Amino acid sequence: VKALTFRDGLKLVRDAPDPRREGEALVQVICAGICNTDLEIVKGYAGFRGTLGHEFVGRVLESPDTSLIGRRVVGEINAGCGFCEWCAQGDSRHCPDRTVLGIKGRDGAFAEFLSLPNSNLIVLPDSVADDSAVFIEPLAAALNILEQISVKNSDSVAVVGDGKLAQLVVLVMAQTGCSLTLIGRHGDKLELAKEFGATRVLRAQPGVDREWASRFDVVVEASGAPSGLATALALVKPRGTVVMKSTHEGSTPLEMSQVVVNELTIVGSRCGRFRPALDLLAGARFDLSRLISGQFPLEDGVRAFEEASAPHNLKIIVQIG
Amino acid sequence: VKALTFRDGLKLVRDAPDPRREGEALVQVICAGICNTDLEIVKGYAGFRGTLGHEFVGRVLESPDTSLIGRRVVGEINAGCGFCEWCAQGDSRHCPDRTVLGIKGRDGAFAEFLSLPNSNLIVLPDSVADDSAVFIEPLAAALNILEQISVKNSDSVAVVGDGKLAQLVVLVMAQTGCSLTLIGRHGDKLELAKEFGATRVLRAQPGVDREWASRFDVVVEASGAPSGLATALALVKPRGTVVMKSTHEGSTPLEMSQVVVNELTIVGSRCGRFRPALDLLAGARFDLSRLISGQFPLEDGVRAFEEASAPHNLKIIVQIG
Repeated sequence: VKALTFRDGLKLVRDAPDPRREGEALVQVICAGICNTDLEIVKGYAGFRGTLGHEFVGRVLESPDTSLIGRRVVGEINAGCGFCEWCAQGDSRHCPDRTVLGIKGRDGAFAEFLSLPNSNLIVLPDSVADDSAVFIEPLAAALNILEQISVKNSDSVAVVGDGKLAQLVVLVMAQTGCSLTLIGRHGDKLELAKEFGATRVLRAQPGVDREWASRFDVVVEASGAPSGLATALALVKPRGTVVMKSTHEGSTPLEMSQVVVNELTIVGSRCGRFRPALDLLAGARFDLSRLISGQFPLEDGVRAFEEASAPHNLKIIVQIG
Repeated sequence: VKALTFRDGLKLVRDAPDPRREGEALVQVICAGICNTDLEIVKGYAGFRGTLGHEFVGRVLESPDTSLIGRRVVGEINAGCGFCEWCAQGDSRHCPDRTVLGIKGRDGAFAEFLSLPNSNLIVLPDSVADDSAVFIEPLAAALNILEQISVKNSDSVAVVGDGKLAQLVVLVMAQTGCSLTLIGRHGDKLELAKEFGATRVLRAQPGVDREWASRFDVVVEASGAPSGLATALALVKPRGTVVMKSTHEGSTPLEMSQVVVNELTIVGSRCGRFRPALDLLAGARFDLSRLISGQFPLEDGVRAFEEASAPHNLKIIVQIG
């Protein structure tokens, strides 16, 4: 099996292990997106070794559930043990023994084939193209914010970062009708955020966090940079909420006393449910393919990762099947 | 005015400025407690210079509100501008222009006299002795947790720390009927926590955070140590809540990715309302004076601070009037 695998470094291998798992579906990968988490894993985050990739569209080749065979699918990335209190509630996202596609204990989507439990798969309607469907995982992650906190249309919300995840957060937050400010570094990405629903965009210049200090009810940190959290903590009002979406390798020095003094709430936010994300996409008036900065065949996967690391780029897609 | 004042260092001065402020009440201080925040200010936290102390019992000497004169009082420590959106809601705790007794822009309670707005003062019933009333400020701070988060009696709650604030948190949390575990370093303090309502006490030995990892719905960090937050983050279940009560000088390196991956909520918690704290004290079946490890006259204030820093001690009271 051909796959983009991380061990000592990131490498295209031609002899990756057969991903087939007993009782699961075997999926032929059509395309897969590179996420900031993938870039962090390559820097050492999460200690994962194996085939990367967790944002994909594919076609089911084999499954004990014959109704799935031949169908075009996306797949939720957490596979639970099936027995713990989390799995009993039908939510494997926090199962302590979970595997996570391309992140933890399970080879991922930058490969010809992958395996996932049948119940993780969602069949795509024909109306949703591959170029849009490949964003379902990060879109679900953005939607998850609204499952965790309530945002009123009278709220003032800021998004720190202008990358691919930040743009999806803007799309989702704009639905609430809130006043929505995005703070980013790149002119073209600031423009895109306006089209996606930001009511104001600010350049992330030195001093912007002082100028706009204590102005927002909710701040979503989606910059992918370790410094993003300090900015978010500066921007939020007393008793306001900071949502953290980015994960990083290593530790960040933080002045946590401001969290106590200003009685801030920090909410960590990770994976979301795919069904509402698919509903949003299927009824979409927005074109997610505008987030795609480049497409590369699996053979050029290492170069695709280099492009994904370039600050001016948004989503890089690896075309596989 | 005789006062315990922090400038280059902590010193007893005999010529502190007259604390009288136009329109406010002048209070003769009877006694005042030393808080961990006072110890942190002496280390440089909050950049405060002036007379320390914010936990006090006193008697009103002068006031435009003549009904207050001669009454024994406690006082809320935040004095707002009276005009901002916070003050308009009757809550000066987050007024951006607030002064805070002995912490920010206002001389504090380790002095013969202090000044506070009349509306900050609460008259004490005779049934509440000075030895109990002096705990109203930190007891209100502990009660504030239950204004911020809801704790069910089916919840498993841990308190990190066994100091004076941690003990008050135990008292407050025990009222919810939750399963309540305190983690601390000192045998006698662990015993006291049991009497105050802890259902389980654990020694803060190396490895205790691994042994009890991901076991608690709510963890309250009240250790006063910068390392307490990392312990709290380890102990809390996925999607659980960590309440931060301690403030420190400086920044703390934290692996914030676990907050994202486990979707934790961190809630900063500072000052509480005095009225519910007084109600709790007035109907109390517990003896707060058991938290007092020593009492010193104002003349020995510097020594009182040394004693308050000693790890085996709980509350040190400065007797003034």
